Amino acid sequence: MIIRPILDLVAICAKKGIENAILSPGSRCAPLTLAFVRHPDIHSRTISDERSAAFIALGMAQQLGQPVALVCTSGSAALNYYPAIAEAYFQRVPLLILTADRPPEWIDQWDGQTIHQEEVFGKHVKKSFRFPDSFVAVEQTWHAGRIVNEAINLAKQFPAGPVHINIPLREPFYPLEGEKFEYPEHPREFTPISSYSQLTEESLKHIKNRLTDVQRLLIVPGQQRPNPRIQKLLDQLASSKNVVVVTDVISNLQSDHTLTLHDHWLGDDSQQVDLAPDLIITFGQSVISKSLKQFLRKSDASHWHIQSDGHSRDTFQHLTRILACAPIDFLAWLEEHLPIQDEGYSNKWKILEEKSKAALPAIFQASDFGEYPALHFLLEKIPAASKLHLANSMAVRYVNFLGKRDQEIICNRGTSGIDGSNSTAVGCTFTTKDPVTLVTGDMAFFYDRNAFWHNYAMPNLRIVLLNNHAGGIFRLIDGPAKQPELEEFFETRQKLNAAHLAQEFGFGYTLAKNQEELETALKNFYEPSLFPKILEIETSSSKNAEVLKLVKEKIKTAIQ
Amino acid sequence: MIIRPILDLVAICAKKGIENAILSPGSRCAPLTLAFVRHPDIHSRTISDERSAAFIALGMAQQLGQPVALVCTSGSAALNYYPAIAEAYFQRVPLLILTADRPPEWIDQWDGQTIHQEEVFGKHVKKSFRFPDSFVAVEQTWHAGRIVNEAINLAKQFPAGPVHINIPLREPFYPLEGEKFEYPEHPREFTPISSYSQLTEESLKHIKNRLTDVQRLLIVPGQQRPNPRIQKLLDQLASSKNVVVVTDVISNLQSDHTLTLHDHWLGDDSQQVDLAPDLIITFGQSVISKSLKQFLRKSDASHWHIQSDGHSRDTFQHLTRILACAPIDFLAWLEEHLPIQDEGYSNKWKILEEKSKAALPAIFQASDFGEYPALHFLLEKIPAASKLHLANSMAVRYVNFLGKRDQEIICNRGTSGIDGSNSTAVGCTFTTKDPVTLVTGDMAFFYDRNAFWHNYAMPNLRIVLLNNHAGGIFRLIDGPAKQPELEEFFETRQKLNAAHLAQEFGFGYTLAKNQEELETALKNFYEPSLFPKILEIETSSSKNAEVLKLVKEKIKTAIQ
Repeated sequence: MIIRPILDLVAICAKKGIENAILSPGSRCAPLTLAFVRHPDIHSRTISDERSAAFIALGMAQQLGQPVALVCTSGSAALNYYPAIAEAYFQRVPLLILTADRPPEWIDQWDGQTIHQEEVFGKHVKKSFRFPDSFVAVEQTWHAGRIVNEAINLAKQFPAGPVHINIPLREPFYPLEGEKFEYPEHPREFTPISSYSQLTEESLKHIKNRLTDVQRLLIVPGQQRPNPRIQKLLDQLASSKNVVVVTDVISNLQSDHTLTLHDHWLGDDSQQVDLAPDLIITFGQSVISKSLKQFLRKSDASHWHIQSDGHSRDTFQHLTRILACAPIDFLAWLEEHLPIQDEGYSNKWKILEEKSKAALPAIFQASDFGEYPALHFLLEKIPAASKLHLANSMAVRYVNFLGKRDQEIICNRGTSGIDGSNSTAVGCTFTTKDPVTLVTGDMAFFYDRNAFWHNYAMPNLRIVLLNNHAGGIFRLIDGPAKQPELEEFFETRQKLNAAHLAQEFGFGYTLAKNQEELETALKNFYEPSLFPKILEIETSSSKNAEVLKLVKEKIKTAIQ
Repeated sequence: MIIRPILDLVAICAKKGIENAILSPGSRCAPLTLAFVRHPDIHSRTISDERSAAFIALGMAQQLGQPVALVCTSGSAALNYYPAIAEAYFQRVPLLILTADRPPEWIDQWDGQTIHQEEVFGKHVKKSFRFPDSFVAVEQTWHAGRIVNEAINLAKQFPAGPVHINIPLREPFYPLEGEKFEYPEHPREFTPISSYSQLTEESLKHIKNRLTDVQRLLIVPGQQRPNPRIQKLLDQLASSKNVVVVTDVISNLQSDHTLTLHDHWLGDDSQQVDLAPDLIITFGQSVISKSLKQFLRKSDASHWHIQSDGHSRDTFQHLTRILACAPIDFLAWLEEHLPIQDEGYSNKWKILEEKSKAALPAIFQASDFGEYPALHFLLEKIPAASKLHLANSMAVRYVNFLGKRDQEIICNRGTSGIDGSNSTAVGCTFTTKDPVTLVTGDMAFFYDRNAFWHNYAMPNLRIVLLNNHAGGIFRLIDGPAKQPELEEFFETRQKLNAAHLAQEFGFGYTLAKNQEELETALKNFYEPSLFPKILEIETSSSKNAEVLKLVKEKIKTAIQ
């Protein structure tokens, strides 16, 4: 017999807009599994490796902007969710995590698959709830329904994030012969009415005053999803007010008006005089460019961060004001009230951007083959209306160097781990028919190969695998590159390529070891297919390090 | 420059008997990596997937009885350790977990690879320490050294387990050109002098009195490593005092004097009259047999658990006494002082054991091919002086049905997860030249395939893969077997076999689909080789369910 509160739980999920569940197999969780699978308005999929399951749910929720439900059995299953949950927490992606558990009397009694599940995700969920473990009083049913409402509301509320409900379940786990699942037609539901935070008139007056002193304003949007309205406001601020807008690729706000090639050349201390701002305005989440971060930390600018709930991070060590409102509202106000900025200042940035832009094609033309020139060539071939998932660590860095992209950029920069890139991209394919291109290195790719271990079609998935048989980033950093332990303990050289994997999972596969093979491979890479395709670009880690160094040097010369 | 306290840390590890470290690549952890790799008395290996790395360390520490050090970089790396850490905690395996972290001022500031690492393993480590993040006062160096001493002492102290030190590190992470690593010759070290807990004379007098009332004593050793002295005492108790000793395979205490086939037939309520004990004595950790657990829960016996620190679990719901002493001491005392038990009682058990034993060969002889008869045949071919790792969930259950084994049995029954069986077996191969046989199902095997993603030889690894292309256990339980969702959401049917994997990693591979192929395959399976070998036994999940049911029915008939 399936207990009523579990049917209620699923009905509330559906009513509150949860349309997808990622389940993992287990017996303790059977009541949840069956209640999700049988609900007519929820699409359930099953993924056996919980680590991948959770990243797949993350990849879906990133795109849908709605929580995805995750269901697993008791024991270590939940622990395998944890890397994705931390990523969701820092990246602010809503997830509803439902972990089946033994009832409390059986915890720590040497019975199977029993750990300490309550609060197990520590500080990496917005809240952790304990579902009642029995329903003898009507208050317990009320409690269960309230928890589900609170949890989903909280997961969605800004900043969105993962919320955990631990659900102790007693046998029987399965319905009786002929038992029907009767979901309540009108489960009790409560939802916050939309509201928003605005700056007071008085605050705006102060800000307006303060802005009269500002001549060198730099706006740095952090990671966020594409937003054409914000894009337009930024472009206006850049073009008509001479505001410098520096956009890393994960901001999804790169345009012809924003700086996009800064990661190649920024950071030289001598640039402080010409390029340092008086005021930095940020919104969204993290930036990638280490040189940008270091440059801004060395400046003596003030820093205002716009975020509607007052949370903030002092990323540049100069935070002075937190503007608790929606970025779009403040940017609109700014566009109207900001005095025109010093043209000389913005021109200095623009000249550097333009010089780099002009220099790049010839630099790559003259370059030996390697992952960086290969990417430069390949990025232009990716359909504009598509999703581009960039793995940590070098894939996203390379693309960030290379400037403006037309695709939506997705990257797990919450924790910046390599652990779930494949799965996150797989989750993305479950939400769109547009091509989803994953650009990844060999370490991230093989780390997360269980992303593909399931029975669901991913015909729109395209994987560009930069295989240098090592964690090539370590050769690009001075410290490890000079150690005798470089190859074994930093790069951790590995021999695999993706040919076996492609055969095993029935993926298309092409290997490119030089420019000619790359060009041939790309000719039909984006042709529709029934299965994912892998384009493996095999290069040498030491050659890649040389090429990157040379490109950067040449750009530095070109901009002088 | 590598800071002194990191060199001290590694020197203390070495002095306290830590001889092995499993490292994972990263830059933040570079000072730890280099200090471990360069220490002459510690053998370091690098494993890229931290989930596997931690299970490999567990597999080593299980065998060595000494902590293995684990080193990872900051961010989600540590979270991937968690499944193995929970397993180590409940299985009582000592691990020293060293997670590099950003210094506290950078936590939660949208800088890369930064999560909330302090206390991140919650209740699944014995303790979590914060290493100092700066060393301006001499007290801080004292503090650092003290933490390392305390942590290793605690990891080893009964009940052994994982201990975590979170280590904030600031740049520079790498040694200067020509910098030498000078480990302290005599790092400060403190170690508890051995001691042990004994029952008082008065307690023993009470116990002796109490034992005069006991006529039906049942001893149930839980999971533990082989111990010939305990084995001998149990055999004496069973043979000269008519004590019934019921041994699951993970007790590593099965003998010709103990009950080993009980899992086939125990549990029938009518058996309570003849077989229920007056007193249950247990030591060690968990038991597997669900029928044994249910049988004892239904009895009205008293239950004494022997454990030297007074921790206990009430697994059978009848716990009355906790004997805080070493099991071996109490068993020796018992062997001397226990009045001879009711022969009728022990004979009833022995008759059932003998009848089952006599019936099994013919039952399997007559059986269709399936994973159960295949295992019955195959187990006899495994060299006696070897290690046998059994994966959850069906592999260990099958072997538990089949009775006495000569090999050391290893199984992750702390959390009973399927998540790290391959890696645990790989860790075992790093500690022995004896054959290490892993018997596993397809779900556990593919779940943990990254166990093999490294460059270290495992010539003694033999994998018996029971591939029924599903989580076959779900077809063996009535509940899920009757649901229309059985195949997709419980069994989660999967298509892979291990041929591609074997080719990819350069393993030997043989497929057996029937008895003849199995016999041929086994002929040279244990011949020495330079690489691991996989023997894949492909069977049908529904046929397996039939066979198991039939075997159990036939045994029940045979024992009547």
